[in-house]
Amino acid sequence: DDGLVIAGRKFKSRLMTGTGKYPSIESMQQSVMASGCEIVTVAVRRVQNNAPGHEGLAEALDWTKIWMLPNTAGCTNAEEAIRVARLGREMAKLLGQEDNNFVKLEVIPDSKYLLPDPIGTLQAAEQLVKEGFAVLPYVNADPLLCKRLEEVGCATVMPLGSPIGSGQGIQNVANIKIIIEQSKVPVVIDAGIGSPSEAAYGMELGADALLVNSAIALAKNPVIMAQSMGLATQAGRLAYKAGRIPIKNYASASSPLTGVVTK
Amino acid sequence: DDGLVIAGRKFKSRLMTGTGKYPSIESMQQSVMASGCEIVTVAVRRVQNNAPGHEGLAEALDWTKIWMLPNTAGCTNAEEAIRVARLGREMAKLLGQEDNNFVKLEVIPDSKYLLPDPIGTLQAAEQLVKEGFAVLPYVNADPLLCKRLEEVGCATVMPLGSPIGSGQGIQNVANIKIIIEQSKVPVVIDAGIGSPSEAAYGMELGADALLVNSAIALAKNPVIMAQSMGLATQAGRLAYKAGRIPIKNYASASSPLTGVVTK
Amino acid sequence: DDGLVIAGRKFKSRLMTGTGKYPSIESMQQSVMASGCEIVTVAVRRVQNNAPGHEGLAEALDWTKIWMLPNTAGCTNAEEAIRVARLGREMAKLLGQEDNNFVKLEVIPDSKYLLPDPIGTLQAAEQLVKEGFAVLPYVNADPLLCKRLEEVGCATVMPLGSPIGSGQGIQNVANIKIIIEQSKVPVVIDAGIGSPSEAAYGMELGADALLVNSAIALAKNPVIMAQSMGLATQAGRLAYKAGRIPIKNYASASSPLTGVVTK
Amino acid sequence: DDGLVIAGRKFKSRLMTGTGKYPSIESMQQSVMASGCEIVTVAVRRVQNNAPGHEGLAEALDWTKIWMLPNTAGCTNAEEAIRVARLGREMAKLLGQEDNNFVKLEVIPDSKYLLPDPIGTLQAAEQLVKEGFAVLPYVNADPLLCKRLEEVGCATVMPLGSPIGSGQGIQNVANIKIIIEQSKVPVVIDAGIGSPSEAAYGMELGADALLVNSAIALAKNPVIMAQSMGLATQAGRLAYKAGRIPIKNYASASSPLTGVVTK
Repeated sequence: DDGLVIAGRKFKSRLMTGTGKYPSIESMQQSVMASGCEIVTVAVRRVQNNAPGHEGLAEALDWTKIWMLPNTAGCTNAEEAIRVARLGREMAKLLGQEDNNFVKLEVIPDSKYLLPDPIGTLQAAEQLVKEGFAVLPYVNADPLLCKRLEEVGCATVMPLGSPIGSGQGIQNVANIKIIIEQSKVPVVIDAGIGSPSEAAYGMELGADALLVNSAIALAKNPVIMAQSMGLATQAGRLAYKAGRIPIKNYASASSPLTGVVTK
Repeated sequence: DDGLVIAGRKFKSRLMTGTGKYPSIESMQQSVMASGCEIVTVAVRRVQNNAPGHEGLAEALDWTKIWMLPNTAGCTNAEEAIRVARLGREMAKLLGQEDNNFVKLEVIPDSKYLLPDPIGTLQAAEQLVKEGFAVLPYVNADPLLCKRLEEVGCATVMPLGSPIGSGQGIQNVANIKIIIEQSKVPVVIDAGIGSPSEAAYGMELGADALLVNSAIALAKNPVIMAQSMGLATQAGRLAYKAGRIPIKNYASASSPLTGVVTK
Repeated sequence: DDGLVIAGRKFKSRLMTGTGKYPSIESMQQSVMASGCEIVTVAVRRVQNNAPGHEGLAEALDWTKIWMLPNTAGCTNAEEAIRVARLGREMAKLLGQEDNNFVKLEVIPDSKYLLPDPIGTLQAAEQLVKEGFAVLPYVNADPLLCKRLEEVGCATVMPLGSPIGSGQGIQNVANIKIIIEQSKVPVVIDAGIGSPSEAAYGMELGADALLVNSAIALAKNPVIMAQSMGLATQAGRLAYKAGRIPIKNYASASSPLTGVVTK
Repeated sequence: DDGLVIAGRKFKSRLMTGTGKYPSIESMQQSVMASGCEIVTVAVRRVQNNAPGHEGLAEALDWTKIWMLPNTAGCTNAEEAIRVARLGREMAKLLGQEDNNFVKLEVIPDSKYLLPDPIGTLQAAEQLVKEGFAVLPYVNADPLLCKRLEEVGCATVMPLGSPIGSGQGIQNVANIKIIIEQSKVPVVIDAGIGSPSEAAYGMELGADALLVNSAIALAKNPVIMAQSMGLATQAGRLAYKAGRIPIKNYASASSPLTGVVTK
């Protein structure tokens, strides 16, 4: 594989994970390792607030190997998200990633489905790009919104497959396909993926990367699921490059005269 | 993984492949290797008939490492299939697999969709079991037929996901699930799988193994697709063991008070 | 519409219903009326046994207007089914349908999913055809089995969409399509339909008729659901004849120069 | 049925249609009649421009019976859409609908998929509401955007099921469900519906109405398809009210002791 490039930075793995919802810090550490991921997203607000269970997070991962993707989870409007993004940049610096200007932008006024606000996200993205951030916005799978985000200078777009934590998979394939087709920045499918088959499917569609958290952290065995997601992401990418067979209504004619070895 | 056991024989890989439809013998050889499979099915009839492209098949694979699964492709009724199964056993012996009594039983009167005949398949299976074969019957995903085949002593059941070569994936999930639930012999999903996401999905459902041929042989790049299918089969198996998250309508409540590290 | 013809008998409605599972006899009577159906299936065994709630069934429907379709529910093998079919013919005669030789053939050894046995069904069908019955066999959606049933002289084939009472809809579209394409007798989709959209879908695929029972009888309001199913069956048939638009990836070019009135 | 109420105006039919893409004016007239619809959307711009085939549109429909829904098709930004909406109001007045202040708001910079711009749509909606319009905005199925549109005073929201004219059906069920759940104004599914089963499905989900154009106008027989869509819309609404059965994995236990008449 040729690797994933975001804002000029190269990554071998096309799977990103998170730190939330795990049964324990150890489980999280081992799952991150097992997944083979190189990018882990962290909720800035909860780390800053010393939210229960976040006390040791700074030391829990080896930030010389894992690239931190600070996120603005918990922000309900553009202003909050901008402020938290700045805190995230400080946090990354403190943890030794001097040149890390990445932010996963989440503007989420909706507490039930945790769906993002398109207007607030675009406003915050514009401002953060001006401030030099590499902005990775979490958005509904809206091709026109993704285009606008790309135009204001976002480093990726991160359309959701289905509501976060729902495990419903990719419920809006038509739009995801259009986003992939038209996008000049990497497309990262974020939220909704519940199983490795769905992860592979996203990659087969041509997504550049995936972000999977709940499906790993809340699996009965997170570490094994993390490994599975890593393999599935690779499998999907390889298949995208290998070029799948077309879907047909009829069985192939099975003549010994065609092909070298006919089944 | 604990491995796949068929008729007392143990295999590490849960992916089976075939030799048909490849652009060249080399492509087939490399794809079999890349897939990591340990079982390869071979059309006895075409080898026996010296059908074009089958001349070198006996030497093309290393039968000390690959377990041959002779199949009765091209047989339209039970009698033919029984005869060809016996030829297959001889062929395996000649190639050095003295104790190989496996046969993939195909009774296919339908030349358009290559769908199997339930009645003829059951008749042939009964006879072949009596003759000491380990019978792996290719059948429609019919739970009652699978039960009957198990009762007459088949070594596995091989329900199809969708018509062979169609790449339509698993089109009868409800029945496949029931077959997996009730079956005491390994369930091998055979036919229809077109992409690694579908391979992973089959394994997530709890299938014991998969047989994939067209989706590899007819991909633009068969070798890379073979590797992808191998990874996806592993990913699906791991996910089955890891226990996926339930599908929910709502996002998970995202409170910093629940869980150790909340996203 | 040109109407449905089964064994030489013509029906205007393409929806069949049943009498089971209703909250009350009145609810059943009104639902049958509201659905507009002309064929109602009745479980011979339960009527004969005077099972609770079946006492007044003979008088509950107007058999001068509704064609009775006696079924062999509760039979686990061919012999039982043949015996019950004969009883059904007597029952129809007693209720005034002298020339009614219809039987919905069910051979169901499986008490959990109520899935039919292909072997027993074929055996019973052969015998019943010889005895002059118009046999409507309930089967898995197996194209080869349906072909065999047609060849022994069945009046229709009745493939199931998904397990009876499951409301999972049509879970095996690939096979249903093949059955419709190849069948020379009417294809009636029986079991699994849970909503009018699924009923319409079945008819759009080209099915000749549908049998819906649980989805009506167990709806919160059976009478309104019956009316809905009747309309949906009509809608699906009309759409089949009207010829739906192809599915496309792209929007239609919206030029005022093409077409008469461009949207 | 209790009827559809939009901006205080009551309609019996829950199906809206259009005038575009028909093979002839006659075909359009008869299809509108056959569908039973009471609201027809008209592209203001093309009528104003005397685009080919739009010459007689004003006289083609009986505007004493059909409520006109002028649309802003062809507008690529908010300013254009506002201007065309005003023209639409004049057009409706000229055709005798003095009190018609409805506008179907389309802001579509994308000429390939005809997908709407969320930002421009919201801007135009805000202005048009201020000017006293009953605004029916055509949008991606984005729950947060729909909420914002409701908050600025739109009369409905019109999320798309899939790209216009694609006939892909409802490809984003998860989002459509959330929109229906949270919306206080009527939800009209617009675009993508290709068949009556999809129309029924949209209504079963709880949509208040549907807009279908291409699937009727471009069917092989538009008039019959129009009738079918009308029936399916009714069927779906009835089913929504009747309360469908839950989806189950298992067949219902079939005991003669439960229920009155057990199948």
